[in-house]
Amino acid sequence: MTMLRDYWYVGALAEELDRIPLARVLLGSPVVLYRNRAGAPVALQDLCSHRRAPLSRGVVLDDDIECPYHGMRFDGGGRCTLIPSQSNIPRAAHIRSFPVQERQGIVWIWGGEPESADPATIPHFPWRDSAEWNSEISYYYHVKADHILMTDNLLDLGHVAFIHADTIGFDARKLAHDPLVTEVEGTSVRNTRIIPDVEPAPAVRRWGHFPGLVERSSISTWYPPCFTNIQFSSRDERTSVELHINHLITPETDSTHHYWVFISRNFELDNDVLTKQMREDNDVVHHQDLDIVEAQQRMIELVPEATEMAIKQDKGLVAAHRIMDRLEREERAGSPSQESA
Amino acid sequence: MTMLRDYWYVGALAEELDRIPLARVLLGSPVVLYRNRAGAPVALQDLCSHRRAPLSRGVVLDDDIECPYHGMRFDGGGRCTLIPSQSNIPRAAHIRSFPVQERQGIVWIWGGEPESADPATIPHFPWRDSAEWNSEISYYYHVKADHILMTDNLLDLGHVAFIHADTIGFDARKLAHDPLVTEVEGTSVRNTRIIPDVEPAPAVRRWGHFPGLVERSSISTWYPPCFTNIQFSSRDERTSVELHINHLITPETDSTHHYWVFISRNFELDNDVLTKQMREDNDVVHHQDLDIVEAQQRMIELVPEATEMAIKQDKGLVAAHRIMDRLEREERAGSPSQESA
Amino acid sequence: MTMLRDYWYVGALAEELDRIPLARVLLGSPVVLYRNRAGAPVALQDLCSHRRAPLSRGVVLDDDIECPYHGMRFDGGGRCTLIPSQSNIPRAAHIRSFPVQERQGIVWIWGGEPESADPATIPHFPWRDSAEWNSEISYYYHVKADHILMTDNLLDLGHVAFIHADTIGFDARKLAHDPLVTEVEGTSVRNTRIIPDVEPAPAVRRWGHFPGLVERSSISTWYPPCFTNIQFSSRDERTSVELHINHLITPETDSTHHYWVFISRNFELDNDVLTKQMREDNDVVHHQDLDIVEAQQRMIELVPEATEMAIKQDKGLVAAHRIMDRLEREERAGSPSQESA
Repeated sequence: MTMLRDYWYVGALAEELDRIPLARVLLGSPVVLYRNRAGAPVALQDLCSHRRAPLSRGVVLDDDIECPYHGMRFDGGGRCTLIPSQSNIPRAAHIRSFPVQERQGIVWIWGGEPESADPATIPHFPWRDSAEWNSEISYYYHVKADHILMTDNLLDLGHVAFIHADTIGFDARKLAHDPLVTEVEGTSVRNTRIIPDVEPAPAVRRWGHFPGLVERSSISTWYPPCFTNIQFSSRDERTSVELHINHLITPETDSTHHYWVFISRNFELDNDVLTKQMREDNDVVHHQDLDIVEAQQRMIELVPEATEMAIKQDKGLVAAHRIMDRLEREERAGSPSQESA
Repeated sequence: MTMLRDYWYVGALAEELDRIPLARVLLGSPVVLYRNRAGAPVALQDLCSHRRAPLSRGVVLDDDIECPYHGMRFDGGGRCTLIPSQSNIPRAAHIRSFPVQERQGIVWIWGGEPESADPATIPHFPWRDSAEWNSEISYYYHVKADHILMTDNLLDLGHVAFIHADTIGFDARKLAHDPLVTEVEGTSVRNTRIIPDVEPAPAVRRWGHFPGLVERSSISTWYPPCFTNIQFSSRDERTSVELHINHLITPETDSTHHYWVFISRNFELDNDVLTKQMREDNDVVHHQDLDIVEAQQRMIELVPEATEMAIKQDKGLVAAHRIMDRLEREERAGSPSQESA
Repeated sequence: MTMLRDYWYVGALAEELDRIPLARVLLGSPVVLYRNRAGAPVALQDLCSHRRAPLSRGVVLDDDIECPYHGMRFDGGGRCTLIPSQSNIPRAAHIRSFPVQERQGIVWIWGGEPESADPATIPHFPWRDSAEWNSEISYYYHVKADHILMTDNLLDLGHVAFIHADTIGFDARKLAHDPLVTEVEGTSVRNTRIIPDVEPAPAVRRWGHFPGLVERSSISTWYPPCFTNIQFSSRDERTSVELHINHLITPETDSTHHYWVFISRNFELDNDVLTKQMREDNDVVHHQDLDIVEAQQRMIELVPEATEMAIKQDKGLVAAHRIMDRLEREERAGSPSQESA
């Protein structure tokens, strides 16, 4: 699989983990996740070293997981602690464990060599801890497409006017000039688009009760390996609607990925009716993206030899691909360069 | 895919096309079909040159189709007419267009290089324009088998007595001698079988109300790339039942094809009850063919190394294979030889 | 496919065969089975030599089977006896036939060259013919896993305490020492485990109405190609429950197999309520095995590069693998060594 290894990826939501093992394929590997007695998350290869049975079908005993097939046990570090029929435990019995960290309701898993895992590089989302933001809305999607297609989708604001015309988009056909500005800063790419005096998007009009035109702005920041933070606002002289939308992708296989979206808003924090409305509205938006990237995936599988052609508005996407290619080359050369947001 | 390229194939029924794009995989390629403002059919590669999104999910604007993802537009010739973010349109933005022609309710698509497309070579079915024939019955089937297996089925009249014993067949076990005559004429192959004083087939007895024996005749003409016209008649001294049955195949992938059948009859033209009866009866016949060729396909996939052995009655099939092989060699050598019916 | 060829395998239950052809993929080959007029089983390649249609869709006429597509006929030896359009029958028209034998309600099929098929090597199960045993219970399962995974499951008694803990197992965590004894005898491997003074397994407690502890013993004998006989008993001073369980595997494809289990018991022979109870109980046991070997298969397909590691209790399994490897090498070298039980 093509992906950056030396990064923290989302493995699960904190609320998904307990003493019952959770099976998930992450970064091309089967992984079993559970909590130990102290409540700390554990992530192990979901394959017993003995006969390749999935450990996730077994049970958690104290801090260890027991293989369902023959009762071998492994601790949170992947060390085999029990082989039913024998007293010595050979080195080959141990299995791979993945560094994990729990932060802000997210369980992060490290994709590279354990010794290079530095929790300081885990992305931090200040608005998720702030009383001035409502962060109740989150989504998980299993997407049947190469993760790079979703990354491209998020790096590209040109599609908003088309795919999302009836939700969060606008009518690009009416726009004389697209004020998109793309900037590269280290290993991150920022796309900024500020449109004054424009109709609010259909969904946004509902959320902000805008009677007329708004200034609409979106600042989208992509950073490795697969993350995009979008700051989205619509405002008139009376009111302002602001959102932080965090898109977090974890590759599953060459042609599928996990996709988490977290939304924080700074308005009507206690309005549960609005929360419900926004949750439904944004789910429609995300399905518009899923539909098109899954359609691209099917086309690529049908015509693998077809090529692509970058256009002017793809500046951000081209920059991000260049960064990813360089980071991958560096990883292969053994000098990981980590600059998360 | 193994197929002849320099031929007109059926792309769709005329009634399927309108301003809503139609997606179909034809000759191994994804194709989008629609009508322009003047009502003329358009066929384009169903892949945007920009990011490989399927154009068929977009909308038709005037004579152009707009990509659903980023709004690029293409005219009926495949020329890109609009790239939202830029004014110059590079040559790489253009996409493949397919010559199309609409004739007798059928939309034909050319499989080869556009400059060699000659509408004069499109098959013509005079009975479909004649007031003396009823041509209301047609069928479309999506068949999960290599197209050559259906071509073979149509070239071979030996199976009629077995697969179709209870519909349009006869009891070959009672027949002392099979009067099958096979003739090759240019690039077409004709199988003729005339059986005097025979029980009419079960379905045919219903259509013609035959009280006793009939003379039964079928003249089946195959011609490249994948077409077979069958003239079928049953007659006694009182009445005669005649049919033209046109079988038109378009390869989809290596292991699937599109299969159209058009039936014209010269009797009881205004009898709607008979039309309904014949439509149902022939659907049963075609499903008997589909069932066996799809079973062959599964067997070939299971035992790809198994060989075949031609028998005497396969003379027509062997002749057609020889013609196809020669035509394919000529196509590869660059001297297309087109001799459609 | 990796499998031993020069052995008798189960093709079908005797009760499955009649004059209606039965299609089954055995040892990687499509096979059609039926009974001739004398009632003897016939097994032929399920592929017509003419056009690769499956003969199993045809009909049996006298002792022959007729191809559904063009009426070619084949006798029980695979000799083509009729080609509708011609009088001479070329050698290439004949198809492969498989030696078959019917014994004790089982139809056995020979996987190797016909001339080396010796019915004397067919496994015999004396208890199936004895009035002192009830042999009414048998099972057939289609398993989506490499046959070797099920063979390994049967050779390994270490899993019983875990996978079958709630049915026929015991709590290995309470067992200080596993009294497993493994012995190799020629080409067969015997695993013996006798545990005195142990709780009877949950299911067994029901069958034998044991009030307290029992002596529990199982003697499991594996022999080539894919067979395991298990002698299972639980006894206290009052009563004894004995079972012969015959596990017979026939590979289907590289990743699927046929799995038959025959159970004979020596107690309460006429108790139909018990028969029904035991049939249900053991079906649960077998599904516990199916679930784990199918989970292993999916893991192996997901991570084909993952390795395995034998542990001490795998002595029997390792011995059997060594025997199978040697027998396969001998088969390839042309000196079949047959030592069935």
